[in-house]
Amino acid sequence: MFITFEGIDGSGKSTQARMLADRLRAAGRDVVLTREPGGSPGAEEIRRLVLEGDPDRWSAETEILLFTAARRDHLERVIEPALKAGKVVISDRFADSTRMYQGLSRGDLRGTVDRLHQMMIGREPDLTFLIDMDPEVGLARAKGRNGTEERFEDFGAGLQARMRDGFLALAAEFPARFRVIDGNRLPETVAEEVAAIAEGALA
Amino acid sequence: MFITFEGIDGSGKSTQARMLADRLRAAGRDVVLTREPGGSPGAEEIRRLVLEGDPDRWSAETEILLFTAARRDHLERVIEPALKAGKVVISDRFADSTRMYQGLSRGDLRGTVDRLHQMMIGREPDLTFLIDMDPEVGLARAKGRNGTEERFEDFGAGLQARMRDGFLALAAEFPARFRVIDGNRLPETVAEEVAAIAEGALA
Repeated sequence: MFITFEGIDGSGKSTQARMLADRLRAAGRDVVLTREPGGSPGAEEIRRLVLEGDPDRWSAETEILLFTAARRDHLERVIEPALKAGKVVISDRFADSTRMYQGLSRGDLRGTVDRLHQMMIGREPDLTFLIDMDPEVGLARAKGRNGTEERFEDFGAGLQARMRDGFLALAAEFPARFRVIDGNRLPETVAEEVAAIAEGALA
Repeated sequence: MFITFEGIDGSGKSTQARMLADRLRAAGRDVVLTREPGGSPGAEEIRRLVLEGDPDRWSAETEILLFTAARRDHLERVIEPALKAGKVVISDRFADSTRMYQGLSRGDLRGTVDRLHQMMIGREPDLTFLIDMDPEVGLARAKGRNGTEERFEDFGAGLQARMRDGFLALAAEFPARFRVIDGNRLPETVAEEVAAIAEGALA
């Protein structure tokens, strides 16, 4: 079972991914908790190459190729071997983040993202939790967490709202695997709902 | 005009690329001499990621994605701007090397290489010089140049011969732009023939 968490920055998805991993482990399951971009040693190196330095150093097209290379490595080295061994794999972000962020920044690139995914990745999650969150609250949380606000100043609430809409549109596009969870609640309350759905799917 | 040089290690293609650049510059032409993998600052960083470390650190598929990302960056930042400015671009290796090396090591990947190229690169050279060379001579030259022979010990003359055949097959596949040059002669003699063809194409 391959479970992913998606959502805007500050939505609490990383916390929820960790809480679900803890809960499933406590119930005796073998769980691999991972994240993207990155997740394997090679993919983490590619992550650094993409995210460090001048934000304009790569074009959107080169960035998609680098993210796809990182995802391929993550898939081969971590996700597929764990799934083959019967483990539960929980990933904080996966291909939906590329669909959303690249599709949002450059609408004409969604087709390229999809074709690259089909050709080089193939794998989709069995279950994706979209932790849905008021964009203003998410932005405030993400700002509070980061030492510097610079990264988010460029974005602002308007872009945060568009990203939320983008994720909701993806959830509507893949209803069989997406579950939209209201993240505007206490983390423990959100975790209860997530765990109930995951345990139902694993049963 | 976009000119590329291809050939096995030790064939003398880098020397020939440089000699042609010098000659065209001496004739008053504006020439950009570049190379792959690499050729732009971002692509050189990807090059280091691919070529350094354990040779098994990347699968063939991830490697093709990384080479394509590097080529996209090289194309956007160096090749296309120079061509638009009316310059002659000479590249020591380009997409044919990926077609050849990945196609040779994993025959089933040639289709993937071609689809990625069509989707993310598109550009083909106007003229490609294949510096054809006796595989034993090429191997001896390449060995002599490298401090360590380790890299080539794994390969040997058998693989070198298969790579030569692979390049000749590519030249037969794209006869309109390939020129096969006998590299088993003095570099100056080879350079004369190369220059005559390039000047004819530029006239």
